[in-house]
Amino acid sequence: MSDVRIDDLPVRDELRGKSPYGAPQLDVPVRLNTNENPYPLPEPLVERIAERVREAARNLNRYPDRDAVQLRTGLAEYLTRTTGHPLGTGNVWAANGSNEVIQQLLQTFGGPGRTALGFEPSYSMHALIARGTGTGWIPGPRGEDFTIDVDAARRAIAEHRPDVVFVTTPNNPTGNAVPPETVRALYEAAQAAKPSMVIVDEAYVEFSHGRSLLPLIEGRPHLVISRTMSKAFGAAGLRLGYLAADPAVVDAVQLVRLPYHLSAITQATALAALEHTDTLLGYVQQLKAERDRLVAELRATGYEVTESDANFVQFGRFADAHEAWRKILDRGVLVRDNGVPGWLRVTAGTPEENDAFLDAVRELKKEL
Amino acid sequence: MSDVRIDDLPVRDELRGKSPYGAPQLDVPVRLNTNENPYPLPEPLVERIAERVREAARNLNRYPDRDAVQLRTGLAEYLTRTTGHPLGTGNVWAANGSNEVIQQLLQTFGGPGRTALGFEPSYSMHALIARGTGTGWIPGPRGEDFTIDVDAARRAIAEHRPDVVFVTTPNNPTGNAVPPETVRALYEAAQAAKPSMVIVDEAYVEFSHGRSLLPLIEGRPHLVISRTMSKAFGAAGLRLGYLAADPAVVDAVQLVRLPYHLSAITQATALAALEHTDTLLGYVQQLKAERDRLVAELRATGYEVTESDANFVQFGRFADAHEAWRKILDRGVLVRDNGVPGWLRVTAGTPEENDAFLDAVRELKKEL
Repeated sequence: MSDVRIDDLPVRDELRGKSPYGAPQLDVPVRLNTNENPYPLPEPLVERIAERVREAARNLNRYPDRDAVQLRTGLAEYLTRTTGHPLGTGNVWAANGSNEVIQQLLQTFGGPGRTALGFEPSYSMHALIARGTGTGWIPGPRGEDFTIDVDAARRAIAEHRPDVVFVTTPNNPTGNAVPPETVRALYEAAQAAKPSMVIVDEAYVEFSHGRSLLPLIEGRPHLVISRTMSKAFGAAGLRLGYLAADPAVVDAVQLVRLPYHLSAITQATALAALEHTDTLLGYVQQLKAERDRLVAELRATGYEVTESDANFVQFGRFADAHEAWRKILDRGVLVRDNGVPGWLRVTAGTPEENDAFLDAVRELKKEL
Repeated sequence: MSDVRIDDLPVRDELRGKSPYGAPQLDVPVRLNTNENPYPLPEPLVERIAERVREAARNLNRYPDRDAVQLRTGLAEYLTRTTGHPLGTGNVWAANGSNEVIQQLLQTFGGPGRTALGFEPSYSMHALIARGTGTGWIPGPRGEDFTIDVDAARRAIAEHRPDVVFVTTPNNPTGNAVPPETVRALYEAAQAAKPSMVIVDEAYVEFSHGRSLLPLIEGRPHLVISRTMSKAFGAAGLRLGYLAADPAVVDAVQLVRLPYHLSAITQATALAALEHTDTLLGYVQQLKAERDRLVAELRATGYEVTESDANFVQFGRFADAHEAWRKILDRGVLVRDNGVPGWLRVTAGTPEENDAFLDAVRELKKEL
């Protein structure tokens, strides 16, 4: 229709020359690149979703429950049961993926004239959502082993006085968890510096050897735990993220949330998934075992592996990680090059998918 | 759990003391306050939604199509068929409600250090989304009769040189449409001043006596038409908004869209609704007739009514519009007080709902 290019439009300066975020979507036999859960939802849950959606569709001419009360209550019950920390509906907020949760948090507590700090490498959407909300981004330090050194982190926080601090645990793409004492120390440092909000991104926590840091919200009104149904619930296609925090935080994000942001269909589907929590957490146990197998086999093959508490494993080191990525792809297995020099990331798939991956990297090893 | 209040948190200054947007959700027999379509989806469509969602749920462990290609193709076909202007997939973008479409547009073309201008009173979310994205907001002028005076509008645009200009047609809450020659003139004025983007919000256009302004995008790469399935498609609960524009605009918003923002479930449901377009547009014809009846009966009862091209009618005038709103509510009918002094807004409902409303305002007239 026209030959207009993006740069012919009056887009914001910081967007010029940028590309949209997203992993390559390639048609490959074994896709272990986006940390999806390899297990399709069980058929009884599929039927329950169809049933609940049919009910919701009969009222679809009406706006959805703007406050998603039933869903937030269900999520609070799930968190209470799995963390042992009692939560109510008022502690929980939900949105279209944890990306939207984080966007709402940055619109509320970040934004123009404010900054957010995250310890890199980490989930790169934190920095991208900061850019999208006009929040300045400060890369914080991580050690050679990808852990967060408390003293170095304290110094960075004291120096930059960020309005928001991100802590991803288990961290993506490295896989390692952040100890609770580190999060406590970072929270204290952030309060001393500003005070600022601390967002703990626990997207992968159900796969962890350790426990959720959710109980830390008690007495810490500036601490937010971010979660998702994309991974442990096997529902990446649903786009349902949520947070747990002091009720004042939930009240605050409602000042920026788009009204009726969460469709009646999404609420119905998520409620169905919550009814099948036990089955879905059973898959999590299988994936943890497969993750541990990947770690052991990669090490036995001679690769370096970062400790993993997630459903993925960071492995290396490669003189040229991107070339290694391509060679694995040539063998029909798609893993992820997150741009961490020397390292790649593989998602724990089904046993068969993991076997295919392990075969590929064993062959690759012979070439290196 | 705690007595922390919003103001104890480090929220942005401009949010302090604010309340979340949203009409009161009251339990009233006749709700004509949020411009919903009163007709539930036909049962064959409900079944088709359940069927398509069941299919999508079987793959829900995977991320959805990030680019929503099939849905955007379906929307382009719908727009082509109903406006006569040929569009392709690349001309169309979809998001969770037109609010998210507008948020993405302001993140791309507005934001910190930039401004947006809208002719008030209009859809108040434009100003709120501007605030949420750090975009400065400039209220533009409307005449006493709620039309846009081209000369006054030109002067406002030349004076303020906004980066984004909003034109809502049919306008909400007043109901009147903006003539195409006005939009052409505003576009020229906006280009001369900056150049800036012009967003034409056509949420209610299917109810109009006139035609969509969509063909104006030809040769106008800075013009965007915003649409929704909430009204004519009777799917407010689905949260599906979309835009039509030059493909470069679609490319540009992808720089700020959250990846995988549109769930597989939403895409499946919207595709089902598109299959039943003809039935749904049949309801639109009924609602247009009811809207015209409301206008005629309100005038016959002695009320002033703004010309309406939408599925709602603005009526007055009242010395105290909020008191009138309450008195209508006392009679079991919920209408909307949008804060336009002297005026209220009523949504065209079913014939029975409209009768109940007309009875209530006839009784009210005797008291005034």
